[in-house]
Amino acid sequence: SKYEYVKQFEKDDSLIPNTWLVIRLDGHGFHKFSDRHQFEKPNDHRALDLMNKCAEAVMIEIHDIILAYGQSDEYSFILKKESNLFNRRSAKIVSTIVSLFTSNYVFHWKTYFPDKELQYPPSFDGRAVQYPSNNNLRDYLSWRQADCHINNLYNTCFWALVHSGKTENEAENALRGTISSDKNELLHSSFDINYNNLPEMYRKGSVLIRKEANLMTLNQKGVEVIRKKKVVTTSHVDIIHDKFWKENPELNVSV
Amino acid sequence: SKYEYVKQFEKDDSLIPNTWLVIRLDGHGFHKFSDRHQFEKPNDHRALDLMNKCAEAVMIEIHDIILAYGQSDEYSFILKKESNLFNRRSAKIVSTIVSLFTSNYVFHWKTYFPDKELQYPPSFDGRAVQYPSNNNLRDYLSWRQADCHINNLYNTCFWALVHSGKTENEAENALRGTISSDKNELLHSSFDINYNNLPEMYRKGSVLIRKEANLMTLNQKGVEVIRKKKVVTTSHVDIIHDKFWKENPELNVSV
Amino acid sequence: SKYEYVKQFEKDDSLIPNTWLVIRLDGHGFHKFSDRHQFEKPNDHRALDLMNKCAEAVMIEIHDIILAYGQSDEYSFILKKESNLFNRRSAKIVSTIVSLFTSNYVFHWKTYFPDKELQYPPSFDGRAVQYPSNNNLRDYLSWRQADCHINNLYNTCFWALVHSGKTENEAENALRGTISSDKNELLHSSFDINYNNLPEMYRKGSVLIRKEANLMTLNQKGVEVIRKKKVVTTSHVDIIHDKFWKENPELNVSV
Amino acid sequence: SKYEYVKQFEKDDSLIPNTWLVIRLDGHGFHKFSDRHQFEKPNDHRALDLMNKCAEAVMIEIHDIILAYGQSDEYSFILKKESNLFNRRSAKIVSTIVSLFTSNYVFHWKTYFPDKELQYPPSFDGRAVQYPSNNNLRDYLSWRQADCHINNLYNTCFWALVHSGKTENEAENALRGTISSDKNELLHSSFDINYNNLPEMYRKGSVLIRKEANLMTLNQKGVEVIRKKKVVTTSHVDIIHDKFWKENPELNVSV
Ligand SMILES: Nc1nc2c(ncn2[C@H]2C[C@H](O)[C@@H](COP(=O)(O)OP(=O)(O)OP(=O)(O)O)O2)c(=O)[nH]1
Ligand SMILES: Nc1nc2c(ncn2[C@H]2C[C@H](O)[C@@H](COP(=O)(O)OP(=O)(O)OP(=O)(O)O)O2)c(=O)[nH]1
Ligand SMILES: Nc1nc2c(ncn2[C@H]2C[C@H](O)[C@@H](COP(=O)(O)OP(=O)(O)OP(=O)(O)O)O2)c(=O)[nH]1
Ligand SMILES: Nc1nc2c(ncn2[C@H]2C[C@H](O)[C@@H](COP(=O)(O)OP(=O)(O)OP(=O)(O)O)O2)c(=O)[nH]1
Ligand SMILES: O=P(O)(O)OP(=O)(O)OP(=O)(O)O
Ligand SMILES: O=P(O)(O)OP(=O)(O)OP(=O)(O)O
Ligand SMILES: O=P(O)(O)OP(=O)(O)OP(=O)(O)O
Ligand SMILES: O=P(O)(O)OP(=O)(O)OP(=O)(O)O
Ligand SMILES: [Mg+2]
Ligand SMILES: [Mg+2]
Ligand SMILES: [Mg+2]
Ligand SMILES: [Mg+2]
Ligand SMILES: [Mg+2]
Ligand SMILES: [Mg+2]
Ligand SMILES: [Mg+2]
Ligand SMILES: [Mg+2]
Ligand SMILES: [Mg+2]
Ligand SMILES: [Mg+2]
Ligand SMILES: [Mg+2]
Ligand SMILES: [Mg+2]
Repeated sequence: SKYEYVKQFEKDDSLIPNTWLVIRLDGHGFHKFSDRHQFEKPNDHRALDLMNKCAEAVMIEIHDIILAYGQSDEYSFILKKESNLFNRRSAKIVSTIVSLFTSNYVFHWKTYFPDKELQYPPSFDGRAVQYPSNNNLRDYLSWRQADCHINNLYNTCFWALVHSGKTENEAENALRGTISSDKNELLHSSFDINYNNLPEMYRKGSVLIRKEANLMTLNQKGVEVIRKKKVVTTSHVDIIHDKFWKENPELNVSV
Repeated sequence: SKYEYVKQFEKDDSLIPNTWLVIRLDGHGFHKFSDRHQFEKPNDHRALDLMNKCAEAVMIEIHDIILAYGQSDEYSFILKKESNLFNRRSAKIVSTIVSLFTSNYVFHWKTYFPDKELQYPPSFDGRAVQYPSNNNLRDYLSWRQADCHINNLYNTCFWALVHSGKTENEAENALRGTISSDKNELLHSSFDINYNNLPEMYRKGSVLIRKEANLMTLNQKGVEVIRKKKVVTTSHVDIIHDKFWKENPELNVSV
Repeated sequence: SKYEYVKQFEKDDSLIPNTWLVIRLDGHGFHKFSDRHQFEKPNDHRALDLMNKCAEAVMIEIHDIILAYGQSDEYSFILKKESNLFNRRSAKIVSTIVSLFTSNYVFHWKTYFPDKELQYPPSFDGRAVQYPSNNNLRDYLSWRQADCHINNLYNTCFWALVHSGKTENEAENALRGTISSDKNELLHSSFDINYNNLPEMYRKGSVLIRKEANLMTLNQKGVEVIRKKKVVTTSHVDIIHDKFWKENPELNVSV
Repeated sequence: SKYEYVKQFEKDDSLIPNTWLVIRLDGHGFHKFSDRHQFEKPNDHRALDLMNKCAEAVMIEIHDIILAYGQSDEYSFILKKESNLFNRRSAKIVSTIVSLFTSNYVFHWKTYFPDKELQYPPSFDGRAVQYPSNNNLRDYLSWRQADCHINNLYNTCFWALVHSGKTENEAENALRGTISSDKNELLHSSFDINYNNLPEMYRKGSVLIRKEANLMTLNQKGVEVIRKKKVVTTSHVDIIHDKFWKENPELNVSV
């Protein structure tokens, strides 16, 4: 039709080949959202489990994702360098992943919060970033995991102080200018908390990769056999140091 | 930290000022989705109502949207030229709108399909397109509405033939090469259907704009008063010809 | 060959349709260049004439340019909205125009500076900017012409002071904080210069458009006839106010 | 001023960090240009020397270029991965390099063509391409050098046939469908030309890198001393195989 020319205004937004693609999404206004749903402070196990469930669903759907890393209200998905998903069109990739994640969040809410009605539909923003080298990608992930650690240490102290009776203002003042060791010490001496004993999910975030697993299935004759299959597995491990990357050479991110 | 440099790899994707921004989203694999949820063919009133509900929710949340147009599994949102939403950053705008829409879709599903469980979480893709002139914007919307008409006329014939006992292949063959008037004639003579009497929502799609309405509220003294407020209203009108645009001068899309 | 895949790394950088395209180029390090070639201060007629000659050559080559505006070491070229030059690919358009301009600058140097050898090859940078509306384009050109005026008024005062014996520092201090009327007054009272009587090229810059002219040619029978042809014409007029645009309706930039 | 808002329409076009940047320029309409200046066929030594001179001048000016490769009417400049030239703004980089090259071309024309007046100002287009890995960069350069070889072998045969009395059409037909070995054989048997003995510049193109050289200078006491300095050197070597890259480890393009 005579209107079809308007399609030409769509810009080609494809990302260049041979770069790692990182899609990071982040909850919109989750300060308010966590409040309205009375998330436990500083970490709500159910909320994080739900985030992980959504990330897993995204990975099951989008095969080119080799790793996902999540913490707080955010998740990063790593598409392999060679990915040709949607011809590497940025908006298609970002919108699809964000939409899938969001959809799963609402869909699975009731499983993780069986006795808390979802008050309003949450949303996430998303973006795509390209990283040319393995080193850049490792640094990206280190950046997010270091961020997780710093925020969590701070929040753990903050809420310990508040739960012990301080006002939020007083807690903030008490923590101003403190460094890591101060905070560890504070937790230890005032609250008898050994930070390193807190759940790894809170301290390190969540790492999803595909790992070969033995699946029990029936063969054509109806006999039980073991089949190797890649399944998405979740752990809460350090991804800053080399160990993880050496143990998972199939990720192809050695440096 | 030493990792923060990775933030510099994020590209500035902001759209230029003073253009109409169109965000179009479209259901991913809705052929299968509509099948799995036994949508009525060719149009499922509940499915379309749900789409409209989601679009309304998006408009209530994002104030810079002046109009939304939907049909089938797609929706287009028009942001006013002057919008500075997220500093006009493309990925933030697209991902947020797609996420909000998706979230509402799952959230409100049960209201529109009370006796049909959602089988799996649906998703939508999205994109942003810039249109410099009012004419371009009008042509964009005409393009979508003409598309609605063409598909709907075809689908109406197709399913009428199928419901009357033809196979899908036979129906396809019967329609090959026909023009509009042939199809109208076919509906009329074979099925006693006057196409123009079919619901406007099916033939024209749905148009959402903000209209001033009289809202009854209580004033400070507790007395009922009428307050004028802009509310999102849905209609199924022609937006190809001038009439609509003349009747809604506040949209600023006169040509 | 097996190497050809590298072509896929070229990004599509085409500009959207239906916007005014402005290509602005600017001399690289012309502070030094004007010094090394002893340009007259504040304005060197030969240097500006050479710039205008280059701009004319660009316009003769690139038909889609409807207007060019130049001042100091810069030139802006306006491509009509409908232009499909190089399929609107940004880098091709910018590089070609900058290259053509540069080439002409060196080529014609000796005509404008017959007794001054070109000391080293000058260069220019360039960029493309899109303007959606006529108003935006008018404002762009007003911005450049206002800039020309402000700089020229300042420079005229500055060099008058310096030529009268002040140091450059003293001149700078004398002008700090002055407004337009102060500077006009200074020129008038101290140097008996009426700013408005200075050459228009210095005060307004140069405007190139295509105008129909009567050209004398021979027809097929060898008889002299008058032929109407569009030729590039240079003037130094105000392009901020409406007058110019009303007098040149063929530019299609009325507002 | 109230016009300054127009600067916001300039888009940030910066290239992401940590990729090799390739700026390739190519003569505009050099088929005609070489004709009008009676370039020798298929290769004009003076024309190629002039191209190399311009490339050298660009490299002397732009320090981040580590290598340049030229053939026919084109040149590719490789900026090191870490380059922050113009904050990696694409249009600034491309336009500046193209402008510098063009300027030198016209400036030095008379040195290389002392008895041939430049008939009109030539121009070049340019583009920037990003390559993430060393391999990609190597493949890019191999692509250009393979292209040089293929074209040159063809052109050598073509012009040998034409110079021997064939029409251009006949020459074209004679070469249609031939492979490399056929062409080598043709040159050998019909024209007694051993292709491999032709000048390397024609067969391989030109490679410019910075190499440490011993420069004789005077020290503060006026005594002649040898100083090591990086100077741009030109050669016509194979850059497809590993040898060149192993011999020049300072380029940091090992694979
Ligand atoms: N109580 C609680 N809050 C959480 C948990 N996970 C995330 N949050 C909250 C804490 C923060 O206020 C918020 C995440 O910070 P953001 O910087 O993303 O802020 P927010 O989402 O409010 O704003 P944004 O729209 O992203 O700019 O989510 C949790 O497990 N428990
Ligand atoms: N039965 C039924 N189907 C509908 C209705 N609305 C949309 N659909 C189906 C018909 C089409 O198969 C599909 C929309 O066409 P699309 O071109 O968007 O295809 P689809 O979403 O399958 O693929 P995509 O992922 O968008 O490329 O949705 C409805 O009201 N009733
Ligand atoms: N004496 C003299 N100088 C002129 C004339 N036209 C331009 N110039 C000089 C004055 C300024 O120093 C310079 C233009 O200012 P720019 O802001 O473009 O600075 P410049 O080119 O040095 O640096 P850039 O590479 O553009 O950042 O050119 C002229 O007619 N006479
Ligand atoms: N006779 C002769 N011609 C040459 C020499 N070097 C380049 N050329 C000519 C041969 C080709 O016609 C032309 C280069 O081919 P291109 O594909 O770049 O074509 P051209 O520049 O005409 O068109 P373009 O504007 O780049 O699309 O330049 C030379 O050394 N001798
Ligand atoms: O959202 P923040 O503050 O964590 O930082 P950001 O995500 O980089 O900011 P934005 O969402 O505006 O891109
Ligand atoms: O999805 P289609 O086939 O209606 O057409 P499109 O949306 O323009 O195609 P794509 O989703 O690939 O951009
Ligand atoms: O060059 P300036 O300082 O006049 O300003 P600009 O041209 O906008 O700056 P840049 O050349 O860095 O884009
Ligand atoms: O100019 P060509 O034909 O060698 O090929 P290209 O340079 O890739 O084409 P374009 O100049 O149009 O980008
Ligand atoms: Mg954010
Ligand atoms: Mg958030
Ligand atoms: Mg967050
Ligand atoms: Mg689509
Ligand atoms: Mg769809
Ligand atoms: Mg659709
Ligand atoms: Mg500048
Ligand atoms: Mg300058
Ligand atoms: Mg300047
Ligand atoms: Mg080309
Ligand atoms: Mg060429
Ligand atoms: Mg060429």
